[in-house]
Amino acid sequence: MINITLPDGSVRQYSKGVTGLEIATSISEGLARNVLAVKVNGSVWDLSRPIEEDASVQLLTWNDDLGKNTFWHSSAHLLAEALEELYPGIKFGIGPPVENGFYYDVDLGEGKTFSQDDFAKVEQKMLELARAKNEYKRQEVSKADAIKYFTEKGDQYKLDLLQDLEDGTITFYTQGKFVDLCRGPHIPNTGFIKAAKLMNVAGAYWRGDEKSKQLTRIYGITFPKQKELTEYLERLEEAKKRDHRKLGKELELFAFSEKVGMGLPLWLPKGTLLRERLEQFMRKAQVKAGYQPVVTPHIGSKELYVTSGHYEKYGADSFQPIKTPNENEEFLLKPMNCPHHCEIYKTRPRSYKELPVRFAEFGTVYRYEQSGELHGLTRVRGFTQDDAHIFCRPDQVKEEFIKVIDLVLYVFKALGFEDYTAQVSLRDPENKAKYIGSDENWEKAESAIIEAAAEKGLTTVTELGEAAFYGPKLDFMVRDALGRKWQLGTIQVDYNLPERFQLEYIGADNAKHRPVMIHRAPFGSLERFVAVLIEHCGGNFPLWLSPEQFAILPISEKYQDFAQQVYDRLQQDDIRGFVDNRDEKIGRKIRDAEVSKVPYMLIVGEKEQENGAVSVRKHGEGDLGTMTVDEFIATFQSKIAEILNN
Amino acid sequence: MINITLPDGSVRQYSKGVTGLEIATSISEGLARNVLAVKVNGSVWDLSRPIEEDASVQLLTWNDDLGKNTFWHSSAHLLAEALEELYPGIKFGIGPPVENGFYYDVDLGEGKTFSQDDFAKVEQKMLELARAKNEYKRQEVSKADAIKYFTEKGDQYKLDLLQDLEDGTITFYTQGKFVDLCRGPHIPNTGFIKAAKLMNVAGAYWRGDEKSKQLTRIYGITFPKQKELTEYLERLEEAKKRDHRKLGKELELFAFSEKVGMGLPLWLPKGTLLRERLEQFMRKAQVKAGYQPVVTPHIGSKELYVTSGHYEKYGADSFQPIKTPNENEEFLLKPMNCPHHCEIYKTRPRSYKELPVRFAEFGTVYRYEQSGELHGLTRVRGFTQDDAHIFCRPDQVKEEFIKVIDLVLYVFKALGFEDYTAQVSLRDPENKAKYIGSDENWEKAESAIIEAAAEKGLTTVTELGEAAFYGPKLDFMVRDALGRKWQLGTIQVDYNLPERFQLEYIGADNAKHRPVMIHRAPFGSLERFVAVLIEHCGGNFPLWLSPEQFAILPISEKYQDFAQQVYDRLQQDDIRGFVDNRDEKIGRKIRDAEVSKVPYMLIVGEKEQENGAVSVRKHGEGDLGTMTVDEFIATFQSKIAEILNN
Repeated sequence: MINITLPDGSVRQYSKGVTGLEIATSISEGLARNVLAVKVNGSVWDLSRPIEEDASVQLLTWNDDLGKNTFWHSSAHLLAEALEELYPGIKFGIGPPVENGFYYDVDLGEGKTFSQDDFAKVEQKMLELARAKNEYKRQEVSKADAIKYFTEKGDQYKLDLLQDLEDGTITFYTQGKFVDLCRGPHIPNTGFIKAAKLMNVAGAYWRGDEKSKQLTRIYGITFPKQKELTEYLERLEEAKKRDHRKLGKELELFAFSEKVGMGLPLWLPKGTLLRERLEQFMRKAQVKAGYQPVVTPHIGSKELYVTSGHYEKYGADSFQPIKTPNENEEFLLKPMNCPHHCEIYKTRPRSYKELPVRFAEFGTVYRYEQSGELHGLTRVRGFTQDDAHIFCRPDQVKEEFIKVIDLVLYVFKALGFEDYTAQVSLRDPENKAKYIGSDENWEKAESAIIEAAAEKGLTTVTELGEAAFYGPKLDFMVRDALGRKWQLGTIQVDYNLPERFQLEYIGADNAKHRPVMIHRAPFGSLERFVAVLIEHCGGNFPLWLSPEQFAILPISEKYQDFAQQVYDRLQQDDIRGFVDNRDEKIGRKIRDAEVSKVPYMLIVGEKEQENGAVSVRKHGEGDLGTMTVDEFIATFQSKIAEILNN
Repeated sequence: MINITLPDGSVRQYSKGVTGLEIATSISEGLARNVLAVKVNGSVWDLSRPIEEDASVQLLTWNDDLGKNTFWHSSAHLLAEALEELYPGIKFGIGPPVENGFYYDVDLGEGKTFSQDDFAKVEQKMLELARAKNEYKRQEVSKADAIKYFTEKGDQYKLDLLQDLEDGTITFYTQGKFVDLCRGPHIPNTGFIKAAKLMNVAGAYWRGDEKSKQLTRIYGITFPKQKELTEYLERLEEAKKRDHRKLGKELELFAFSEKVGMGLPLWLPKGTLLRERLEQFMRKAQVKAGYQPVVTPHIGSKELYVTSGHYEKYGADSFQPIKTPNENEEFLLKPMNCPHHCEIYKTRPRSYKELPVRFAEFGTVYRYEQSGELHGLTRVRGFTQDDAHIFCRPDQVKEEFIKVIDLVLYVFKALGFEDYTAQVSLRDPENKAKYIGSDENWEKAESAIIEAAAEKGLTTVTELGEAAFYGPKLDFMVRDALGRKWQLGTIQVDYNLPERFQLEYIGADNAKHRPVMIHRAPFGSLERFVAVLIEHCGGNFPLWLSPEQFAILPISEKYQDFAQQVYDRLQQDDIRGFVDNRDEKIGRKIRDAEVSKVPYMLIVGEKEQENGAVSVRKHGEGDLGTMTVDEFIATFQSKIAEILNN
């Protein structure tokens, strides 16, 4: 008998050679129907592979990322099988799972092409083969046999791949008539695949090498239920509508210019107001939380980054040094603000009494990304962090963590992110040597983070070995309105920079001590955050943030003066908006305001003018009736207070 | 007879060969006593030099910069004469006038030194020689004779200088026993010099070449009245106290770090708050004036600056291009924001109806300066401009100019700069070819500026030929509390960038037109402005700007709770300050608050607590008596409204 430890810590005994599927069956019939693969001591295995020794075992279903992965990898084989039936003589490159689905790189043969028009028949063939419930069969083969097989088949690509493999490690997987060189693992049979859709077709060089032959890359996605495919396609459609690049252009928030440079956003007036409001919001919250603002330059001497260690680690892959004309100097565009803040800390001696010191800066940093990697505002070459560095005593780490968590949660609430979890990244306890900092400090910091997260009632996942070499951290994973996950708001303990910059404070014992540093940025990058926010709310920003909170729409020219009076009154209370004085019909004005997603439309005509009132229309909600201007202001302000008051 | 035209335009007739002194005497006895030199057709001459033809003539006195210049140049000769008497065998390099006074570079001979201890005896000798009223005599000499003279004297430096001079252009000046190689001009005699003071002594390489011999540079200053020297020394003393580098450190406003780099200021928390307040002030005023904020990156592709023309003109003397690791790209740190703003203008078509468009950015720019040229915040390598660019139709230039002038004057008023003049820089009418832009546009813009300045009642000086090649401009020259002049607030018309960037708008005629661009920055550089402001107000910032507007000083621990209540109440009205809860005597607390220049000290003890009141003490004014907290707030707010409400 062997001992099988399950994720909940329970241990069960099975005969030697038990399979994942047998374990699932022993637990429940339902689980056995849904299980896709099994994780054994950290590696993913076929469900049919015998387990010969004591092991930690996790049964993987569609709800696990690794389960989905296996499902889509098997689906790539299914795609290949379908293609081989439809296009005899087709040759295959590689076919891995990706974030959403899978692809296969194929060589259709001289002069043959593949386009969207061919998708339907391939999808049909895939589903037909899936219904056959063909088993994915694993088979160990010798290198010689493998070479023989693909030589006979005439598949040069698989032969290429075989060259790099060692004899004794080679496996084939077969389902139906299709045989593939593959390390596995796979789901039990094709019957699990109930819905299939090809998504895209593109060119791809064999092995990513521009000098090699260009193959055809076919992207697809599959699901265990038809309903999930339908929902996925709907989400995709919605995501397209909400694409921040599209909305950013429509709402005139930002733009790019080739002459300025790729990945370097130009913030247009409305986008700048949005940014300024986010900054102002954070600035206010930070002042309240005891942060002190600082401003530092966007470059630093190379020496600064040699000291911090960044130059050694990232120098070659970064924007290259800036030389000066007459002097032997080198500067670097700053990739982060921490070294500058360390230098501010050092401008005078610090006492234990004044700690923690918290320096905050909306610091614009520049990091080189290859042009092909750039994407809207989510992947740029220059971005502004809502950065801060806390310098504290080791005994203050927990309290500071709690305060930062409070700040992050306040941000999430104010911006409508309600679905999030926290990941706590700790040291690998087996491999303490690779971390800098004393055992005592690590233990103190790790338990501080764990306790702080618990006290704030966060749902957490703890990952051993995921800490940076210089300290443990806590990340927030936020799920947006379309169910996509974003990492926002990292809190990172750092023992390294205080060491490298020789930071000190005078303790109560009058001796010199080293402070602990905490890096944190609730938004992270303002650019990326705005992109996520645009897509999360589909451009309907929270009222307090909206670039234009109201539009006053006079029914005709006669009411322009009254409209202006209402405008002036709202301005006094810092409510933002405009009067639409265009010579257009009221219907057109309302339509245009709806398209611009202005939250409140205030329509003024004769009746309103007589009563000092406005007819209020809310974006997406419709008519709210007539109210006096003061009533509107009161309603408006209570809406905002609801969100922003902690 | 010849015609002599005086600066007021009047023409007088004199015999051929008349001298500047004779003209002065013909005008008034007093002028003849005070005249130092004469400007003849743009060149400065000795007063004794005969004028042989019709000429424009300006008599120069101590009140003219060129008069002072001549006075100090002659004083350098007087210093040399004194040194030669006291240090026989001394050799002379060069001795020019400088901004405040003059210097002479001398070689005292092997092993001899000169220090502050020697100043007094040299000053006495100078005054003794001055009292002799020795005439400065001009003499034309052949190159051979000049070489002979200095060879005999053994002065290698003057021989060095002679090498570069052409025969027929060489003159000597002699006063008393001292003969110098000199182009002149000089004042009539040493008797004009009534006060002399040596200021400093330093090393200086001959001809600025580190490989040459190091000479001794002796700085001095002289005046036509003893009283003026006394006042100058007092101002100098006051300027030292107000030096922004000293106050910046004392008030913890900013710092520099060698590791970050020279000339790259780190703004400390209090300085950052000051900066933010200035920005907020300007932002508000700009929104009111119809500006739209934008944000652009701190780098731009080299192509951007090739288009703008900056690369060709300044590229070699700037921070060098930034390369990227994998791609053939080059970026430049942005030295100005205008090219970026042109690209924003181009993000969509513009109609004549939406002009003027005004893009404003607190844009941080980087310009290379040699390390030796750097000085506190006034000469830095990175600074933030309160920059904006107005894109308008040619017919809107005047109105826009008036609006910008209004904004600049609002800034001056809010910051206590009361003494300023405006300089209008126009085309050289004789040399129109060197300017870009049509005649019609230039005429329109120049008269727009002149009319705008007149309408705003500005005291102006008009300078022909001082316009940039791309447009006319208006500069403000501000005199600070110590009488020093600063150029603040430039408004510049630009026809060049719209051309280079091919900017357009669709006119009422449906055809494409080119907009005019106006550059403007009321503060100029925030860094330099803060430096000027610190020195202007000696660190006593205007109340609205003060980092800490009040300090609440509880008489003892017993009143800390009440102090906190007062603090909370003031916070509600956005009044900034702190409670001094240290365990110190009230006298000490007041002293410390005075040193930190906190405008209002609010002392709270038993009586105040009973009455919900505070005892108010104003910095530099003393006790204002007891008032309720609400009364204090009202007083405080009316003080601020006085300054800020336009």
